[in-house]
Amino acid sequence: PNQFCDKTMEIVRKTKKLGQDDPRRIVHSLKVGLALTLVSLFYYFKPLYDGFGDSAMWAVLTVVVVLEFSVGATLGKGFNRMLATFVAGGLGVGAHCLATLAGRKGEPILIATFVFIIAVIMTFMRFFPKMKARYDYGLLIFILTFCLVSVSGYRDDQVLKMAHERFSTILVGSCASLIVCICVCPVWIGEDLHNSVATNMEKLGNFFQAFGDEYFEVSAEHGQSSENNKSYLQGYRSVLTSKSSEETMANFARWEPGHGPFGYRHPWKMYLKIGNLTRDCAYKVEALNNYLNCKIQTPVEIRGKIQGQCKRVSLECSRALKEMASTFRKMVRTRSAIVHIDSSKEAAEELKTLLRTNLWEEADLLEIVPAASVASLLLEIIECIEKISEAVNE
Amino acid sequence: PNQFCDKTMEIVRKTKKLGQDDPRRIVHSLKVGLALTLVSLFYYFKPLYDGFGDSAMWAVLTVVVVLEFSVGATLGKGFNRMLATFVAGGLGVGAHCLATLAGRKGEPILIATFVFIIAVIMTFMRFFPKMKARYDYGLLIFILTFCLVSVSGYRDDQVLKMAHERFSTILVGSCASLIVCICVCPVWIGEDLHNSVATNMEKLGNFFQAFGDEYFEVSAEHGQSSENNKSYLQGYRSVLTSKSSEETMANFARWEPGHGPFGYRHPWKMYLKIGNLTRDCAYKVEALNNYLNCKIQTPVEIRGKIQGQCKRVSLECSRALKEMASTFRKMVRTRSAIVHIDSSKEAAEELKTLLRTNLWEEADLLEIVPAASVASLLLEIIECIEKISEAVNE
Repeated sequence: PNQFCDKTMEIVRKTKKLGQDDPRRIVHSLKVGLALTLVSLFYYFKPLYDGFGDSAMWAVLTVVVVLEFSVGATLGKGFNRMLATFVAGGLGVGAHCLATLAGRKGEPILIATFVFIIAVIMTFMRFFPKMKARYDYGLLIFILTFCLVSVSGYRDDQVLKMAHERFSTILVGSCASLIVCICVCPVWIGEDLHNSVATNMEKLGNFFQAFGDEYFEVSAEHGQSSENNKSYLQGYRSVLTSKSSEETMANFARWEPGHGPFGYRHPWKMYLKIGNLTRDCAYKVEALNNYLNCKIQTPVEIRGKIQGQCKRVSLECSRALKEMASTFRKMVRTRSAIVHIDSSKEAAEELKTLLRTNLWEEADLLEIVPAASVASLLLEIIECIEKISEAVNE
Repeated sequence: PNQFCDKTMEIVRKTKKLGQDDPRRIVHSLKVGLALTLVSLFYYFKPLYDGFGDSAMWAVLTVVVVLEFSVGATLGKGFNRMLATFVAGGLGVGAHCLATLAGRKGEPILIATFVFIIAVIMTFMRFFPKMKARYDYGLLIFILTFCLVSVSGYRDDQVLKMAHERFSTILVGSCASLIVCICVCPVWIGEDLHNSVATNMEKLGNFFQAFGDEYFEVSAEHGQSSENNKSYLQGYRSVLTSKSSEETMANFARWEPGHGPFGYRHPWKMYLKIGNLTRDCAYKVEALNNYLNCKIQTPVEIRGKIQGQCKRVSLECSRALKEMASTFRKMVRTRSAIVHIDSSKEAAEELKTLLRTNLWEEADLLEIVPAASVASLLLEIIECIEKISEAVNE
């Protein structure tokens, strides 16, 4: 019984955390409840749906399947579902008419052939990457509707009625989902993508903010600040694997109408470009992070010689990234990040001349390499950040 | 008309390529066609399905939705669909019975409340990462079936019949999909995961094979081999972003029964671990790749001094990785990769002593750093590879 109690508490804790992390999840659950209850009642009260008959349950089904977390996903699915049902319904009716010409015996053979051909072609089309990204669900529904309409036709010779009913109930369901999704606390996936790209830049900025202190003062005891620094230094790791989620978001975002600062044909592709550049930078950060936990470390006194310049480069990179993130977030076009990039370049030049003057003649090359690599990585990162800044300004 | 011709040719070319890249795609399309035609004919011929009535179309619907490319995905979806329909159908009947106790007026209110509560709870549960990974589809179907059964109940007072029909048609559809999916050229996603993990190791191995030559002989003209090398050097890039696809595959693979060399409870989690380690190694390879196109290059004569050792380390790493990939592919436990790791370690020790002897006293430190970093990265990569080899042997 105690174990059971623990398990329950664990679940309650997790649920609370899920809700607190993103309260929109709770709102979404309530929205689904609302939409479903509305459509169910519509189905429940007989007079209203007499025109539709039994197929009114398609409306319920549509709401469950179409109503997604974000507006973009809901619009994409709803549009796919409606278009596919409309086209496939028409084709199904056509196939039925053709098949009836073949007479009683030929009909099932002809219909089976049609179903087979359509299913094979549409299933294969789902493998095209471009189709998969935007119309995967539509192709599925296309197969489904075509089968249902063309096959059901024979039974009660009401093929047109079936096609019409199916289309109108799906229209009702899709519209109900869309209205609830857009009118009640809408979640714009484009906004999420926008924020996620900005947050990724910030995470890299946080890393550089903490990196200088961490690398050059490893030996010094900083009990208090290290906790905070650790989380700053680990934040970039999620950037490394953000590619697929960004692509999904961009795909959904394309369906969204203009809202707030985002126009209808907002250049979501640019977001992917910025995301890719940020990730390239994150790979370099990963390399930099390796030197924090390296076995062969450059002795502190040697590191001290390049400390000032390296710290400055790192700090200016951090400022540039954060500045870019904040202007990007606000969607203003300023050149304020350039100031930081320029001053990091200045520090980089100093660092280069410092490295040229063979400061460390007495030391072991093997021990110098880590610190020197850190310095040269920082130089490369400046270039990376410049590229990001160009992309952000586009 | 010419443009239209070009477009058509383009599509034909793409289609051919998709089919050639993975002929299983064509087979899958044919399988979907086959299963759908079978179920449609079953629905078409009246005598067979008279027991089911109109709801026989659920069987068609189930085939379209459940029949996926791989056995794991089909089993997962089919199982989710059957279990969710069974449980939700039962609950729906229960909710209906409870609601009827409340009398004519209370019934719609009570049913609406039930629908709302179930929809909210189930939708929220879909946000739990573990639920999302394995039971996302089941939760969706749960909401759907519960709504349909509990709401339809009032109309014809045939709630039990509805629940029973829905369940049995879905059973027929799921079983038809499963039989076609498993019996006709099955695609095991576990095998795909197995191959993809091995291929990723091979890609890194290819990189190391080409890296030594490419880095130390950039100046020399190798018109012929460079084409081949270029593709070897770029291959690792897909490893960087393979995380999410590996996770999806592992999720599906868990559903698959034992087949060939894979047992039912095959340790798919270990594959994710090996995948992560391989990716960590790929991040280092990305750092290494940067030095191939670096602006500040170490002069060739200086690089020449560490050429022998570096090339050997790189080559032995390549052999170790390829050896691991091939033993992993065959699922044999040999220690043959260890030999290569050991000999790469030997070369690494030589390299270390070489670096300690300050070979390059006359040179500019800034110019030495790239080559030295390459050397130290190679040293780190050996450790990485050792970790992978340990994980592979587990």
